[in-house]
Amino acid sequence: MSSTAEIIAKNARLGGNTLKTISNENRSRLLYKIHDGLKANAKSIKEANQLDLQKAKEDSLADSLYKRLDLFKGDKFDTMLIGIKDVAELEDPVGKVRLARQLDENLDLYQVTAPVGALLVIFESRPEVIANITSLAIKSGNAAILKGGKESVHTFREISRIINTVISENEESTGIPASVIQLIETRQDVSDLLQQDLYIDLVVPRGSNELVRKIKSSTKIPVLGHADGICSIYLDSEADLAISKRITIDAKTSYPAGCNAVETILVNPEMPKWWEVLENLSKVGGVTLHVSADVKASYLDFLKQSGAQDDDAQGKIVDADESKDFDREFLSLDCAVKFVHSTEDAIAHINQHSSKHTDAIITENKAKAELFMKGVDSSGVYWNASTRFADGFRYGFGTEVGISTSKIHARGPVGLDGLVSYQYQLRGNGQVASDYIGSGGKKAFIHKNLDISNLRL
Amino acid sequence: MSSTAEIIAKNARLGGNTLKTISNENRSRLLYKIHDGLKANAKSIKEANQLDLQKAKEDSLADSLYKRLDLFKGDKFDTMLIGIKDVAELEDPVGKVRLARQLDENLDLYQVTAPVGALLVIFESRPEVIANITSLAIKSGNAAILKGGKESVHTFREISRIINTVISENEESTGIPASVIQLIETRQDVSDLLQQDLYIDLVVPRGSNELVRKIKSSTKIPVLGHADGICSIYLDSEADLAISKRITIDAKTSYPAGCNAVETILVNPEMPKWWEVLENLSKVGGVTLHVSADVKASYLDFLKQSGAQDDDAQGKIVDADESKDFDREFLSLDCAVKFVHSTEDAIAHINQHSSKHTDAIITENKAKAELFMKGVDSSGVYWNASTRFADGFRYGFGTEVGISTSKIHARGPVGLDGLVSYQYQLRGNGQVASDYIGSGGKKAFIHKNLDISNLRL
Repeated sequence: MSSTAEIIAKNARLGGNTLKTISNENRSRLLYKIHDGLKANAKSIKEANQLDLQKAKEDSLADSLYKRLDLFKGDKFDTMLIGIKDVAELEDPVGKVRLARQLDENLDLYQVTAPVGALLVIFESRPEVIANITSLAIKSGNAAILKGGKESVHTFREISRIINTVISENEESTGIPASVIQLIETRQDVSDLLQQDLYIDLVVPRGSNELVRKIKSSTKIPVLGHADGICSIYLDSEADLAISKRITIDAKTSYPAGCNAVETILVNPEMPKWWEVLENLSKVGGVTLHVSADVKASYLDFLKQSGAQDDDAQGKIVDADESKDFDREFLSLDCAVKFVHSTEDAIAHINQHSSKHTDAIITENKAKAELFMKGVDSSGVYWNASTRFADGFRYGFGTEVGISTSKIHARGPVGLDGLVSYQYQLRGNGQVASDYIGSGGKKAFIHKNLDISNLRL
Repeated sequence: MSSTAEIIAKNARLGGNTLKTISNENRSRLLYKIHDGLKANAKSIKEANQLDLQKAKEDSLADSLYKRLDLFKGDKFDTMLIGIKDVAELEDPVGKVRLARQLDENLDLYQVTAPVGALLVIFESRPEVIANITSLAIKSGNAAILKGGKESVHTFREISRIINTVISENEESTGIPASVIQLIETRQDVSDLLQQDLYIDLVVPRGSNELVRKIKSSTKIPVLGHADGICSIYLDSEADLAISKRITIDAKTSYPAGCNAVETILVNPEMPKWWEVLENLSKVGGVTLHVSADVKASYLDFLKQSGAQDDDAQGKIVDADESKDFDREFLSLDCAVKFVHSTEDAIAHINQHSSKHTDAIITENKAKAELFMKGVDSSGVYWNASTRFADGFRYGFGTEVGISTSKIHARGPVGLDGLVSYQYQLRGNGQVASDYIGSGGKKAFIHKNLDISNLRL
């Protein structure tokens, strides 16, 4: 007997198989219909949202969570609607020819992008994520099972009701079955879905690091996401002082809760006036520095020598816990600081401690920068730029599925491209392998790459 | 305390981190040195190989296994040596710029290929695989832990001794540490290594489907390989008879043990003279047809009507086990046969039963072929060509790491490209994210793609 989770997963797979064959025009047309449906039902969505907000108040939810739940705060609802149309207007990620090669006369090989298949998307309180993920999934030709957090259950249920109604009402004209988007309420067990690796191809968690970590450790399905964002900045002996100050302030203080915020600063003690960077972080940025013992001794020395008004700065120093603070995502105005004595040592530290998200070197020396970018094994390796640039919008991807710290498939900020894979199409007129050299025959392969710039299959 | 497996895996990660920074010139130079070392030690390798062969005789190993073990049969040893030089001469898969985008003045983003990191390669009896995998790993900048089968332990041990010696002797000039290739003997437990997902990025099993299946079910590390090759051919109502005969004979009989051999034939009963394709497979190819009930009735009818000498053909028919034979990799001169009544039904059957390896449609109708190639969710989707073309050499990849049935990262025949991933390099001169629109600033991103055809970083 099939479990509920298995039935849901199987239906997603079947829905995805159909969606895979639907034209970009029809996929985008459905997104417009979903946009219209949600817009027309703003009133009932708002009522549902009010129920969630009321419950949140009764449960004394934290203020930040409450704000996230409120779908009609400011222009959030309208932004959500615009987002659906924006995705509809993006270039079709499916069916792009990435390689074309003539194997022989009338035997042509094409590497063509194709949807991954069936996605399981798990997210927490923000109800607008439903619309966002629904758009991305349909646009990229993937079926999606959506599982939201219990705090937004009423909003989620109403939005999902509308989306499902719209898909069903338009099935005849678009060819897209309702099973492409299945919205799962909290009572159904997500852990059962995470076991459906036969049908589900990719899990996309959208939420806290804790959520991602929990999911990663409980499924064999590949996970697109990052549990931690432990980013480092290395101040080289040839770092520019002004650049170092500007970048560290931006990377640490502009959004400390972001996964691309810096958590560790590695200082080469041969950098002239390196202490000013730390002082600046403390005084201007209000950052508490978790410093290793050698940094502390030198820093206090320099503060004394410089004769600066150092009380503020001194008050912002604590001893680093060497066994923890360099593997820690503070997500606050805190930062671990350590001396390293060469670019090689900085690379070694980062490869051991960082979460392979984004790491930067500040230096005026190109050779050291190239070595750093070649040696650091993270999805983003930066030279003289803030780690905060690690973001799909800033990279120009139009929309962001998430940021991946996986080593294979999609790395770093992931756009729609992360939801597609590829297939090889081989178009012949009756050729068989045994006619060719290497398999008993005499024919030789041509293996000539074809120009794909203007190719239409 | 660290386990042995953890130490090995950690060393591989560290070795990979160093190898990542080594130039293509030095990686290739080391491969030539390994070639020379193995060539110079042919005698001791042959002696070791004799010990394995003797043991195999004592243990009465199957003839096919014995042949695989024999490294000096024919020109196998020389071919192995040439293979190392061939890999050395391939284009560098590392450091290729796949995307370049100007984000702003002096702020340029590059997507650059990079090694995956640390590989665990598990293979069975063929001892020459060691040299092959060592070359592929070093060329692609990846560290590898190699684990061979117990039948070839003496050969394996001697080859690995030589490879390790060569790497160590050349460490000073190439910069490549011996830990990039660790050769593990059978007594060390592979299951412990499969748990090292913190250090190992990709598992590459080279061997029987049983081996691959076992590995896939016992690790969280991504596996590059295929457990099954259940390939199908659909004979459409508009299939050309001569093409159908030629392709089915090639796909089934030229190498029945290959993963790209056809296992299921789906017949549209509206195809004129479809029975001749089956008759041809039986009589000319010696294939036993496992036919579903409706096919059997019609087929016997047609054989009778055609008045052919049908005794041979009839003797080659057995009843298909509907619950098993369409999910079965026969790996022999057997084939399951079923009626389907449309391209859509063929697609649905394949998406449910095939192993997502390679599936083909035979038809003269372009629209149906396009629908098939768009709808079938396998790594290879073929039109009027034999499934046997699914192979790295035939695709023109130079060398083959394996064939993947995974849905993400690398699909189908995988060349060196499957052992690399990518990183984003961002090169700036002090830019910070908070200066830009969307993060509190006023600057707008340029987001202009740069020409990468002649780019050198």
